Amino acid sequence: MTYAAPLADIRFTLREIAGQADIAALPGYENATDDMIDAVLEEAGKLSGNVLAPLNRTGDQQGSRLENGVVRTPEGFVGVYRQFIDGGWNSLPFDPEFGGQGMPWLLATAMQEMWQSANMGFGLVLLLNQGAIDAIHHHGSPEQKATYLPRMIEGAWTGTMNLTEPQAGSDLAQLRSRAVPQGDHYLITGQKIFITYGEHDLAENIVHLVLARTPDAPPGVRGISLFIVPKLLPNPDGSPGKRNDVRCVSIEHKLGIHASPTCVMSFGDDGGAIGWRIGEEGRGLSYMFTMMNNARLAVGVQGLAIAERAYQQAVAYARTRVQSKDDTRPDPKPVAIVRHADIRRMLMTMRSQIEAMRGLGYYTAAAIDCALKHPDTDARRKAQDRVDLLIPIVKAWFTDLGNEIASLGVQVHGGMGFIEETGAAQHLRDARILPIYEGTNGIQARDLVGRKVAKDGGETMRGLTAEMRALAAELEVVAGDDTAVLADAVAKAADALDDATAWVAETGKADIGAALAGSVPFLRLAGTALGGWMLAKGALVAHRRLASREGDPAFNEAKIVTARFYAEVILPPALAQLGPLKSAGRTVFALAEEQF
Amino acid sequence: MTYAAPLADIRFTLREIAGQADIAALPGYENATDDMIDAVLEEAGKLSGNVLAPLNRTGDQQGSRLENGVVRTPEGFVGVYRQFIDGGWNSLPFDPEFGGQGMPWLLATAMQEMWQSANMGFGLVLLLNQGAIDAIHHHGSPEQKATYLPRMIEGAWTGTMNLTEPQAGSDLAQLRSRAVPQGDHYLITGQKIFITYGEHDLAENIVHLVLARTPDAPPGVRGISLFIVPKLLPNPDGSPGKRNDVRCVSIEHKLGIHASPTCVMSFGDDGGAIGWRIGEEGRGLSYMFTMMNNARLAVGVQGLAIAERAYQQAVAYARTRVQSKDDTRPDPKPVAIVRHADIRRMLMTMRSQIEAMRGLGYYTAAAIDCALKHPDTDARRKAQDRVDLLIPIVKAWFTDLGNEIASLGVQVHGGMGFIEETGAAQHLRDARILPIYEGTNGIQARDLVGRKVAKDGGETMRGLTAEMRALAAELEVVAGDDTAVLADAVAKAADALDDATAWVAETGKADIGAALAGSVPFLRLAGTALGGWMLAKGALVAHRRLASREGDPAFNEAKIVTARFYAEVILPPALAQLGPLKSAGRTVFALAEEQF
Repeated sequence: MTYAAPLADIRFTLREIAGQADIAALPGYENATDDMIDAVLEEAGKLSGNVLAPLNRTGDQQGSRLENGVVRTPEGFVGVYRQFIDGGWNSLPFDPEFGGQGMPWLLATAMQEMWQSANMGFGLVLLLNQGAIDAIHHHGSPEQKATYLPRMIEGAWTGTMNLTEPQAGSDLAQLRSRAVPQGDHYLITGQKIFITYGEHDLAENIVHLVLARTPDAPPGVRGISLFIVPKLLPNPDGSPGKRNDVRCVSIEHKLGIHASPTCVMSFGDDGGAIGWRIGEEGRGLSYMFTMMNNARLAVGVQGLAIAERAYQQAVAYARTRVQSKDDTRPDPKPVAIVRHADIRRMLMTMRSQIEAMRGLGYYTAAAIDCALKHPDTDARRKAQDRVDLLIPIVKAWFTDLGNEIASLGVQVHGGMGFIEETGAAQHLRDARILPIYEGTNGIQARDLVGRKVAKDGGETMRGLTAEMRALAAELEVVAGDDTAVLADAVAKAADALDDATAWVAETGKADIGAALAGSVPFLRLAGTALGGWMLAKGALVAHRRLASREGDPAFNEAKIVTARFYAEVILPPALAQLGPLKSAGRTVFALAEEQF
Repeated sequence: MTYAAPLADIRFTLREIAGQADIAALPGYENATDDMIDAVLEEAGKLSGNVLAPLNRTGDQQGSRLENGVVRTPEGFVGVYRQFIDGGWNSLPFDPEFGGQGMPWLLATAMQEMWQSANMGFGLVLLLNQGAIDAIHHHGSPEQKATYLPRMIEGAWTGTMNLTEPQAGSDLAQLRSRAVPQGDHYLITGQKIFITYGEHDLAENIVHLVLARTPDAPPGVRGISLFIVPKLLPNPDGSPGKRNDVRCVSIEHKLGIHASPTCVMSFGDDGGAIGWRIGEEGRGLSYMFTMMNNARLAVGVQGLAIAERAYQQAVAYARTRVQSKDDTRPDPKPVAIVRHADIRRMLMTMRSQIEAMRGLGYYTAAAIDCALKHPDTDARRKAQDRVDLLIPIVKAWFTDLGNEIASLGVQVHGGMGFIEETGAAQHLRDARILPIYEGTNGIQARDLVGRKVAKDGGETMRGLTAEMRALAAELEVVAGDDTAVLADAVAKAADALDDATAWVAETGKADIGAALAGSVPFLRLAGTALGGWMLAKGALVAHRRLASREGDPAFNEAKIVTARFYAEVILPPALAQLGPLKSAGRTVFALAEEQF
């Protein structure tokens, strides 16, 4: 089972939900014409479907292997990576000053979806490199930028993020790796774990970004600085030279993403790895935060991507597997299971949430572009506020759904879903990391409640619910049963989200424990409500297109049906998190530790 | 990480929820004294924790292997199986006439929970044998019973169920295996897939129960008969003799339960496997239905069991992993993550649903005992109606929760949860088969709506909701905030369940497609509501015990807190399935197959 990029829905979402035209009109994005975007999507679709997707299953079976300190990626990965960077795909969203193509993040996000759907184990090297490029771009010195950015943007070198240590996971204040100054550089020592693509054979050099403590630095997060530690030290001409004192000592045996090597990295076994500080001392963690939004959006998009892949595979199976009679007809002849009520309910559950995620994900990417490029300061600030609020929702809600949808994909396959050869189980195994890495989903909910809503007392969220109500009003005046259902659902979702936000903002001040106890249910409510808004927006466009006989009527009808299914079936239980999120604090702290 | 049987909660549930005393008083269960049950539980707890549990992870790692037609189970399994049957554990719930100990199913269910928590890959051989024993016991001839039952009940021989063929999964009407009469027996030919423990090295013989068609049998399910096909043909003295013409041709590479060999079985490659018909021709499938209730209860209990195992592991990790400060105190010192609000929310979500499942599972097992042994005909019939109604709920709701709870177990571990060495991921992989086998959960929901509720228009369900209301009334008159919350929650749950049941009963007659589209949300609502009833019942007992200073106060307090958490946090979104279950039919059939 391979993958075909859902180009029709990607185009619809870019244009009608995320405002592709407005983004393309921003200064700096002049190259992002409709024709150019269409051509890029078309080619990216081919590359993902024909080249990356066929290596997904073999990548899982073979995994990456560590042999004598060298990590070998699965068969075919080296060639495909070459093809990927030769095609210029890696450089697309980056700064033209360093060889990038300066395309909008909106477009990069749509492409990211395709790469990750096609092959998440492969796609991870791209994500990590993107994060490292961002960090150096924002905080590196001119020399550092000149040395590293062109090669990393091209993809000839890749980047890594070295944060976690055994005793320092979510709590980076506990990290112990040390950086001792020596001349123009530092000597880095310490062990880092969970380093994605920390060692591999795809690129000629690997640029490690490492969090470590300088001597006499204060304890806690203020003592942490950020360092560039290349695997091969660049020669004066920029070419990769002598081996640095850093090595991969083992790779993890994981539930999923087997193709992606998760490395234990050891720095300074022979006296110290040579590293150069990025920016000021003690600001390492705050620099990490700069690139966090893009990284978390990307992980959210992985949730969307794996869900899309699982959905395509489930649909293909449901269309061809013949078993039992049609649920709604007397004819006893066995039919394809796509004609069975509960298989359809599962497919609609998958499909509707995928489209809701795509809407909210692309909408958030467009806001990132606005925050970067809008000529108006207020518009930039407003866009940034929305990005900051939406990112934890996108990361956590998408990745939870990625797991739920991959599990539904297994279920649609029945017994075959449990057999590894089928491939459905791989998606579930791969998806399971997403709610954990790049900040667990609990950490995202804490960020949403403790920082984002707390920061402005919920004002940014109220800006979004005001737009939801405006859409509900638009839908209400359109004649028709479907639009009436959607108008009502969007208005109810806005009410519930406002109510929950006000409670969270208020309670967060008085009783942070209670607010945090309700934070995950709150995030679920928020994501589902905002996703419903996106679907209803698309349904209104589809409704108008049908009226004016514009576009493919089957596509437009499906948009309306899908939005209505979501409004009637998916939304109500999520809105019913309103009570639980307010109540959880009452019992969550009531047991002593020994009572568990 | 090992497993300790939760004996305190098992005992509480047996006595206070499932009515152990009433069951022990039934004719035929005279041996099931309180002392005997306590002693059995104690020993079963040791065996499961000390002997079975330590082989769970190595069983997963090694898996069963097929070598030259022989299946080798993982290291240690042969010895442990020997120990298990030598201890008489296999024979506990079976007929004393054939060597069983005639203990109640209620007790067998509590022990089943322990075996499956400790080692599901091992425990499956017990489940399959139990099903085969049931079938022969109910429908075999006196000679068949005499030949097979004593050895199978002892565990010297094990049984299998050969139903599925590649084209016949949920739809057994499509099966093609053939049975041609020859003298006193039949010659069986055909291929069966997904045969759990179809071949293995634990027992000296394997008794295959095989569904196949006789010549000139009508098409569809009426043409299917049931046959006993032993791996080794019994000699006249009953000892295992000549090899029959049946073999395991391959075993599946699965997502989980690696220790349990899932076999492709080939019958009759050398002309025909010798088999003997059980009962009448054409009644094979109806015989399968006889033992379905016990088998489906057992699979539901596997869902509970894997959830309990995942919970114990998550609690142990949360108590020892130190990371970040306490959520509710200013002290910046890092604390064990069990002090964090969202970790607690996850643990409470796991714990409360586990106790709800244990309550409903044991209650159902007690009803099975009543249906078998109650001296009063009406009481037997009423109990059987309850069993028939509850079984699909127990099977599907428990196994869905098993997956959700195993996934929460991974999440509590953070990054370590994704690493196979930790063991948390194995529970998730193992759990994933449960919503699929023994009738997918979609099939369970169809059974609930299309047969069980349809059969009596919801009368049996209304009998249960009447008891829920009676409990709510009891709780209402008890002073206290907790009991008031529980009274309200149980009454609301009964209302929602009545409303949903009435809709399903009515709609099932007029528009079966719409009723089936809502069947899975209906089952979820029903399971969650009934589980809340069980918890509230336990909380009331705990409340009274606290008032009379009876028992361990920490245990009793925890019962009340846990029930309240469930009532306030778990119940509301499930009751909010009322709208969705009624609405799903509107959109589920609206797309053409090509629109997916």
